Amino acid sequence: MIYLDNAATTFPKPHEVYEEILNCMKNYGANPGRAGHKLALEAGRTIYETRENICKLFNIDNPMNIVFTNNATDSLNLAIKGLVNEGDHIVTTSMEHNSVIRPIKTLEKIGVSNTIVKCNESGELDVNDIKKAIKENTKLIVTTHASNVCGTLIDIESVGKIAREMNIVYLVDASQTAGVYNIDVKNMNIDMLALPGHKGLLGPQGTGILYVGEKINLNQLKEGGTGSKSEELTQPNIVPDKYESGTPNTPGIAGLNAGIQFILKEGIDNIRKHEEELTQYFLNELSLIPIIKVYGTKDAKKQAAVISINIGSQDSSEVSFILDSVFDIATRSGLHCGPLAHKTMNTLEQGTVRFSIGYFNTKEDIDKAVAALKSIVDEIK
Amino acid sequence: MIYLDNAATTFPKPHEVYEEILNCMKNYGANPGRAGHKLALEAGRTIYETRENICKLFNIDNPMNIVFTNNATDSLNLAIKGLVNEGDHIVTTSMEHNSVIRPIKTLEKIGVSNTIVKCNESGELDVNDIKKAIKENTKLIVTTHASNVCGTLIDIESVGKIAREMNIVYLVDASQTAGVYNIDVKNMNIDMLALPGHKGLLGPQGTGILYVGEKINLNQLKEGGTGSKSEELTQPNIVPDKYESGTPNTPGIAGLNAGIQFILKEGIDNIRKHEEELTQYFLNELSLIPIIKVYGTKDAKKQAAVISINIGSQDSSEVSFILDSVFDIATRSGLHCGPLAHKTMNTLEQGTVRFSIGYFNTKEDIDKAVAALKSIVDEIK
Repeated sequence: MIYLDNAATTFPKPHEVYEEILNCMKNYGANPGRAGHKLALEAGRTIYETRENICKLFNIDNPMNIVFTNNATDSLNLAIKGLVNEGDHIVTTSMEHNSVIRPIKTLEKIGVSNTIVKCNESGELDVNDIKKAIKENTKLIVTTHASNVCGTLIDIESVGKIAREMNIVYLVDASQTAGVYNIDVKNMNIDMLALPGHKGLLGPQGTGILYVGEKINLNQLKEGGTGSKSEELTQPNIVPDKYESGTPNTPGIAGLNAGIQFILKEGIDNIRKHEEELTQYFLNELSLIPIIKVYGTKDAKKQAAVISINIGSQDSSEVSFILDSVFDIATRSGLHCGPLAHKTMNTLEQGTVRFSIGYFNTKEDIDKAVAALKSIVDEIK
Repeated sequence: MIYLDNAATTFPKPHEVYEEILNCMKNYGANPGRAGHKLALEAGRTIYETRENICKLFNIDNPMNIVFTNNATDSLNLAIKGLVNEGDHIVTTSMEHNSVIRPIKTLEKIGVSNTIVKCNESGELDVNDIKKAIKENTKLIVTTHASNVCGTLIDIESVGKIAREMNIVYLVDASQTAGVYNIDVKNMNIDMLALPGHKGLLGPQGTGILYVGEKINLNQLKEGGTGSKSEELTQPNIVPDKYESGTPNTPGIAGLNAGIQFILKEGIDNIRKHEEELTQYFLNELSLIPIIKVYGTKDAKKQAAVISINIGSQDSSEVSFILDSVFDIATRSGLHCGPLAHKTMNTLEQGTVRFSIGYFNTKEDIDKAVAALKSIVDEIK
């Protein structure tokens, strides 16, 4: 099996991730932050250490500003719904995932309006359009860092600058870039950063992160036991407890910690270099195959390692099915939970076949994917 | 280490649980319900099979009525906040965990009122008091099945009967009983059932379940990618997708499946019998030690395997600390995220030392705990 669905979940994980999950479950699988016994303390220490390692990766000062969630969707819902109130306005882009668009659309019902800035057909954002979309009541700008459909990168540093100048909160969805691209919340003026644990950060599914900047105070979306201020009937107003009710996914977070340590050891620049090289190689090869249409910028410097294509007018699901069943190559087809992005790219009807490259893919994997595509194209012609 | 903190998280897990988590991560660690390739399909199948096994345990007909969440707190928030609207009234008890009380208190701000029925000092509920608390606008009754502080069981069958007669939705928090006690949603008239995966169900942390009865339509608390109806900008109105946005905790759910299969194989009655025997033995031994005050019913037939005590007026945290550091026995002390329960039991100042027994505890573990307590009592006298 050649796995090219890393934009959904990276696979495989570094062996250290598997080992740490098992180590946690077998040796300190207790409840962190509640009891004071040895196993509970060890669980608590691991979670704190993970917060610290996340801080290293994104230039965050205070580990207590790291909130653990279930996945990036959970993080985005908390960030968006926790911040805005009736009468507020949100600016976002047409390349967002449904995890951004659907919460924003839901908020319309309680009187939160929005402007969805249109990107060009390659998914590129003109940051001036963000500036133009800002109104007096704009409370939040939210953009992805890279499209999950065609990989196109957004210049989050420039958007962050605008947000800071206009004193508007900036939320970045780094689902497709965390662990691979340099993201510096301070230099890039990012107030909130939503991250999945199970993609570029190489942790297991069931982990997500929201960085909530020091000055931001969100309404929590759920309440419950926090292990702190147990005597109070209301949610404690201390971070991260306020946003983290109930037992956390300790083994998952321990695995995520191992994933992040792997990234810190390998070096994020080396990881990106490898993915960029494979992406550019794949893009070059694809350009030589007739009938294949490649979406996005077709430039590995301008996009994450996510490549969407179609073969003529072939149904994208059928192509994905053939890649899997005949060639043992795992891709994703269809709409990728981003209908507005597909509208932007004019692929709402056909969807796309998405290849997404991870750190553990090799040039040989790409060669096999190219050969498979050539074979399918030959069959059609 | 003698682990007696199973009410927080059961530890250890059956070895099948560790193995299945690893098997999932190493062999089919892809994203379920999104792509159509082999690994994604296998992940999807495992999640569906887990829904089916949960149905077996609780006499649920439709696997699509099983919603996966992060933990029981997540489940309770969705159940409570998803159901009620301004003007509604909720009936609950004074023995609830903060994961029930805090959401209910938060709802007061949007005009949802509540009545908290007081239990007696042993944590026992007079079900007639539930009946008396019902008003014309009561939309929801929520009770725990067993107190997480002193273990006292609530007669959920009788409460369910009242709820059905009065046509009110009944939500049960089975955090302390699922996997150990027989819970039959049909015969007990339970409309919603909130469950942690990591306690009696023997799965890993990071997993929770909400059963949402066929007739119940909740407002979802978050929106995002569901892998279904990707073309729509609003959350799809199909279950369980409506309530399950974003990538699920597939390895966690796979581990939970292994835990539930273990329970089905061992037999829930055998599990309960073992825990009841150890609980009664412990209660008997405790009654022989001077100065020790045991809370709750002191009858293993009337309580789950959760035993709260204090030694004279000793600080509960100090006793727990000594148990851990001198005797290598893991317990939890303090308020256990249940301030109203402690008020009911008159332990709000002192807290309690909580011993919670799991299926893997032995008589020898209890003997060692008893010996340790005797030794601490001797030291004090």
